[in-house]
Amino acid sequence: MNTVQKLHAIDSEYRHLERAAALLQWDQQVYLPIMGIEERAEQLALLEAVAHKRLTAVETGQLLEESGSTAENPRGNESLPPLERDFLRVMRRRYDRAVKLPADFVSDSARAEGLSQAAWAAARQNNDFAAFLPHLKTMIAIARKKSEYWGFGGGGYSLYDGLLDIYEPGMGEAEIGVLFAALRDRLAALLQKIMGCPRPDTSLLRQPFPVEGQAAFAQRLLDYIGFDRQRGRLDVSAHPFTTTLGSHDTRITTRYFPDNVLSGIFSVIHECGHAFYEMGFPSELQGSCLADGASMAVHESQSRFWENVIGRSLPFWEGAFPLLRDVFPAQLAGASAGGFFRSVNDVKPSLIRVDADELSYSLHIILRFELEQQLISGELEPEQLPAAWREKMQQYLGIDPPSDADGVLQDIHWSMGSFGYFPSYALGNLYSLHFTQKLNSDIPDLVGLVAAGQFQRLHDWLRDTVWVWGCRLEPAELLHRVTGEKLQAGPFLSYIEKKYGELYSY
Amino acid sequence: MNTVQKLHAIDSEYRHLERAAALLQWDQQVYLPIMGIEERAEQLALLEAVAHKRLTAVETGQLLEESGSTAENPRGNESLPPLERDFLRVMRRRYDRAVKLPADFVSDSARAEGLSQAAWAAARQNNDFAAFLPHLKTMIAIARKKSEYWGFGGGGYSLYDGLLDIYEPGMGEAEIGVLFAALRDRLAALLQKIMGCPRPDTSLLRQPFPVEGQAAFAQRLLDYIGFDRQRGRLDVSAHPFTTTLGSHDTRITTRYFPDNVLSGIFSVIHECGHAFYEMGFPSELQGSCLADGASMAVHESQSRFWENVIGRSLPFWEGAFPLLRDVFPAQLAGASAGGFFRSVNDVKPSLIRVDADELSYSLHIILRFELEQQLISGELEPEQLPAAWREKMQQYLGIDPPSDADGVLQDIHWSMGSFGYFPSYALGNLYSLHFTQKLNSDIPDLVGLVAAGQFQRLHDWLRDTVWVWGCRLEPAELLHRVTGEKLQAGPFLSYIEKKYGELYSY
Repeated sequence: MNTVQKLHAIDSEYRHLERAAALLQWDQQVYLPIMGIEERAEQLALLEAVAHKRLTAVETGQLLEESGSTAENPRGNESLPPLERDFLRVMRRRYDRAVKLPADFVSDSARAEGLSQAAWAAARQNNDFAAFLPHLKTMIAIARKKSEYWGFGGGGYSLYDGLLDIYEPGMGEAEIGVLFAALRDRLAALLQKIMGCPRPDTSLLRQPFPVEGQAAFAQRLLDYIGFDRQRGRLDVSAHPFTTTLGSHDTRITTRYFPDNVLSGIFSVIHECGHAFYEMGFPSELQGSCLADGASMAVHESQSRFWENVIGRSLPFWEGAFPLLRDVFPAQLAGASAGGFFRSVNDVKPSLIRVDADELSYSLHIILRFELEQQLISGELEPEQLPAAWREKMQQYLGIDPPSDADGVLQDIHWSMGSFGYFPSYALGNLYSLHFTQKLNSDIPDLVGLVAAGQFQRLHDWLRDTVWVWGCRLEPAELLHRVTGEKLQAGPFLSYIEKKYGELYSY
Repeated sequence: MNTVQKLHAIDSEYRHLERAAALLQWDQQVYLPIMGIEERAEQLALLEAVAHKRLTAVETGQLLEESGSTAENPRGNESLPPLERDFLRVMRRRYDRAVKLPADFVSDSARAEGLSQAAWAAARQNNDFAAFLPHLKTMIAIARKKSEYWGFGGGGYSLYDGLLDIYEPGMGEAEIGVLFAALRDRLAALLQKIMGCPRPDTSLLRQPFPVEGQAAFAQRLLDYIGFDRQRGRLDVSAHPFTTTLGSHDTRITTRYFPDNVLSGIFSVIHECGHAFYEMGFPSELQGSCLADGASMAVHESQSRFWENVIGRSLPFWEGAFPLLRDVFPAQLAGASAGGFFRSVNDVKPSLIRVDADELSYSLHIILRFELEQQLISGELEPEQLPAAWREKMQQYLGIDPPSDADGVLQDIHWSMGSFGYFPSYALGNLYSLHFTQKLNSDIPDLVGLVAAGQFQRLHDWLRDTVWVWGCRLEPAELLHRVTGEKLQAGPFLSYIEKKYGELYSY
């Protein structure tokens, strides 16, 4: 084996271990008996330690150096094929990141995350923030420490910059702050304006939709939009997510509420967007670290594209509404595709992020971004978080959360220590509209195809422009290559203003 | 940490890795998308290699020696507490076994087993023995090689002895052959006699029982017999099994056929018997290798006790039949507990082992035992297996399998390389009746308790006599300690003759 082949072997073992750990995590969310949680945390801690050890072996560093890959020139020797040079860039980043974390820190963190997640699930169920607080403190301490190990928190970079960089390489809190400021002011103004307009009739959504029917519809929806069941599956968990457990094994989850039929439907479409990306990496990247999203924001651009640009469009429901009515004939007897489309785009400030309309959604994210900044900088004490949450909910959405369960405890992310992840959702909205503009010019008939339930050309376009790259390109490079543009709030805001201007005639 | 504590730490890591691997296997049987199978085999191979490496590190051998544990004196220094000496015995056995297997052999075997299992599942579905044949050959070669690595196949021990020893330590093919010969002749004669008696009316079983109802009843059955859902769960797989993924996480599976309601019911009760044992190890053994069954035959004694001695008894159905009729009121309107009891004990030669009545069941096992002997010795070529299978089915059960799918391909065991496992089922029957005799003398009112659906005292008795030992005692020691006896066919045969003599008035 040559040097690069040896690195591929390490990458492969590391990935198998990480995916075994991902199965343990998936199972914890979906099927694990409640008493099994503590030992599961031990198992995960051990697997993470073994994976970390494999990646950070002295050999890895030596092989990277032999290939000419350094911090300054991560892509290594210029004589190597471009694919291998991209591989070296990603391996170098992973190795540098991992090697700076002590082994004990890695396994202690994994154990603490497992327990924290379980504590969050119980605290949310019991509306008991105090029970989660000690875990939250631990998660914040771990996140700060991790960023510090990576050299952030000095030299012009904040600790929070280090966490953002995990999910959106190269984008710090200053840059995100500028994009979000533009978004916040315009969206808040639009929300105000819409709240003064006549409301659509959404009474059809306020009927009970039994979860068995919702689950049956979700299965039909998977087939309808082209989810490959031979390479993936759908299960139920408290918090919807997507995870990849193998090159041909990507799993999504959702949840069903009898009094909220939209939650299950749009979670499924959202997670399918993630899964399509994961399942769509080309075969020459499969089995290597290049078979990964360019960034979490680009990942969210795929999921939020499917959820909103496609899933909340009139053409989509012209095609899909008959399927839904088939499952719920009594509830939807007098309804039409147009009326349903109108209902699913009802804009109003709401409590729960994942159930928010696409206009107010980004305000939920900006709230979290600002709280994360304060939590990681130390400006805000974890004890003060519920109060700060309520204050910002009032300020941005005019809502007073009735409980912490439906407020500060609603999301799983902080319980897993995933600080810095939330901005990806709103950035994903921005990316997705850049991509959509290009898509509309490349496939002028998209609307007709979507209305006919024909998604193959759409899959092909996404595959050929975005998925084909895996993480070979940095997110900014990818966007530039597809659209020639730089990330901005403009395309997203134009889309929102046009869509909701038409809907609310403001 | 002292020497024994260090060994406990190794044992603990080894177990976490093995249980992570067990989750990957469980998932493969229950939820894995079909295209994910090949990479799952790679993941399993790597995990098995990592676990094997952890157990067989030079350090383990040194620590065992420091504790005074040798091949001749596995329990180590006499000054140690009995619990630690038992721990050393089991660690010594595991270490000696593992260290004799080369690392490559371990990971290659795990990979081959994963692929073979998947090939078997497809071959069974397509009734295509030829497609499974190359995998079967590989599995036989691996089994033979493994036994050879352990030093069998010479010095008076056959290669098959080495495989039997995995599941029933200390019992070779000669000893099992003697027990099985007694069993075979008597059971074949009884079967002949019963076939000449008037048949019971089993028409109630020949109605369709929708699987949704069966699944609902299975859930009620779990609660009824005392399965702790906080520490376990029930799923569906092609072949029912039990696996333990953590000290508080034991999972069982079953399957439902609309035209055979008994299959799902008795699989659930059978697997519950395994799960009760796994869940019943005392807390001082949890977290160590002592939290394991004394042997697979003792394990099967628990499952077959619940399935047959309890589950196929009249008192059991006096209590449980109303629950079943609740779920299937139309099918069971005119039926009684007594009639149902009579139907579930209909003795007749049948194709499928797991659905066999308890009298002819052991003949299915003896058939497999004899074929395994020949396959491992090389007397029978794998190509000849389907023909040999049909011949023995004819000879012992008077049946001609209509297909390989319902014949030689019906069981998963050989596809996983588990040669030597099958005898455990019939030996389990023998153990279970030794235990039952003692149980009946300790709890004279057992029949009344079972009829009343009160299983707590039964759980307590099993816990205090059998489960409490984990694998601290060798199976023969355990049997002697509980009953003062040595394993024989007598108690089982007496039970069978009494029960079926009454049922068939022969």
